[in-house]
Amino acid sequence: MLTFPPSMQKLIRELSRLPSIGEKSATRLAYYLVQHEPTLAKELAEAISVARAQIKLCEKCFFLCEKALCTVCEDSHRDQSLLCVVEKPVDVIALERSRAFHGLYHVLHGVWSPLRGQGPESIKLRELSDRIKAGGIKEVILATGATVEGDATALYIAKLLQDAGVRSTRLAQGIPKGGELEFADDITLTRALAGRSVLGAG
Amino acid sequence: MLTFPPSMQKLIRELSRLPSIGEKSATRLAYYLVQHEPTLAKELAEAISVARAQIKLCEKCFFLCEKALCTVCEDSHRDQSLLCVVEKPVDVIALERSRAFHGLYHVLHGVWSPLRGQGPESIKLRELSDRIKAGGIKEVILATGATVEGDATALYIAKLLQDAGVRSTRLAQGIPKGGELEFADDITLTRALAGRSVLGAG
Repeated sequence: MLTFPPSMQKLIRELSRLPSIGEKSATRLAYYLVQHEPTLAKELAEAISVARAQIKLCEKCFFLCEKALCTVCEDSHRDQSLLCVVEKPVDVIALERSRAFHGLYHVLHGVWSPLRGQGPESIKLRELSDRIKAGGIKEVILATGATVEGDATALYIAKLLQDAGVRSTRLAQGIPKGGELEFADDITLTRALAGRSVLGAG
Repeated sequence: MLTFPPSMQKLIRELSRLPSIGEKSATRLAYYLVQHEPTLAKELAEAISVARAQIKLCEKCFFLCEKALCTVCEDSHRDQSLLCVVEKPVDVIALERSRAFHGLYHVLHGVWSPLRGQGPESIKLRELSDRIKAGGIKEVILATGATVEGDATALYIAKLLQDAGVRSTRLAQGIPKGGELEFADDITLTRALAGRSVLGAG
C-alpha cells in the first residue's frame, strides 16, 4: 500500500513521541514542516538542538537555566528563609507573574504518583531534604497542584518537614477569580467553605 | 520578571509557529524536549532536517516523494485515464487505504478559499489544466472535502473541465458507515436523500 516517503514517516514517528501529539496531529505537523513555512523547519531543528545543549537545571532550585544558578537563586534580595515547592518550571513562571512571592523555589520535576509508578525517589525530594538540612529555611510553601497527586505529594513533604521541625503551608484552595458558584464542583466548594476567612468580627 | 532562559524561549517561540500549537502547548512540548527523553530532541531535530532536505513534490501529481515521481505515478498498471483530485497528501493515503481507487492523483495543496485570501492561483490548478490538456484523461473525480471550501473548489474545477470537455464526478456525500440518523446534521441528511440509490426496481 502507498505510504509517505521514508523521511516523512520518520518525522511523523518522532513527532508522535511528543506528549499529546497523536499520529494524526503528527502527520499534520510534518506536512506543515516539509511543505509550508520554508524557514520554520530549519529554525525549529536548530532551536531544539541549541536548547537541548544549553538548558540545564539550576544547581540549587532545579529551575531551567543556562548557568549554574538561575536568576532567582542568584538574587540576594529574595527572602532566603521562605521556600516554595512546585511541580514544574512553568509553575515558577506563573508564581513570578503574580509578583506575590519573594522567596526561593524548589522544582520537584514531577509528583509522587504511585499509580504511574513514580515513587518519591523519581522527583527532587532528596535534594529538598538536603536544602532543609542545610538550615536557614523557616517556612516551606507546598505549591503542588490541587490534584490528587499534588495533594498526596504535599502531604508526603509536610510529614518530612514536620520531622525536621520546619513549618509547612499549602496554597489556599477555593473559588478562582471570576468563578460562579453554580459552576464550581463539590470539592472546590467544600474546600472554599473549609478555608473561609473572617470578614467582620461580628 | 523571571522568564525562561533565552534558548528555551526561542524553542517555545518556534514551536508556537506550528499549526494548532499555542503558547501553553509549546511550553509543555519544549519542557518535554529539554528535560525528558534524552534521545528525542536530537532525533527530532535530525528528522526535521532530513525530511526538509529530502521531501519534494512528485513532478506529476504533487504527492510527497523523495524522487522525481511518486510510486503511484511510476506504476504503469494504474488506470491512466482516471484522475482523482484531492486537497492534501494525507487524502491520497486515505484513498489508497480504501483500496477502492486505481487511477492517478492530483494533489492541490490547498483549496480555493476567498475568505482566507487563497485564490485559485495559490493551489496546483494550472498544473491540473496542463495535465488535462496533455490528453488521455477521461474522468476527473473531485475528491476535495465535503466542506464549503471543498465544494466551492470542486465546482470551480468542474467548470474548467466542462470547458475542456472532460467528465467530472464528485464523491458521494451521505451518512458515514456506523452513522445513526438521529445524530446526522441537516445538510448530511439532505445530501443523503438527494443522492439516494435504488435498491429494488419496484
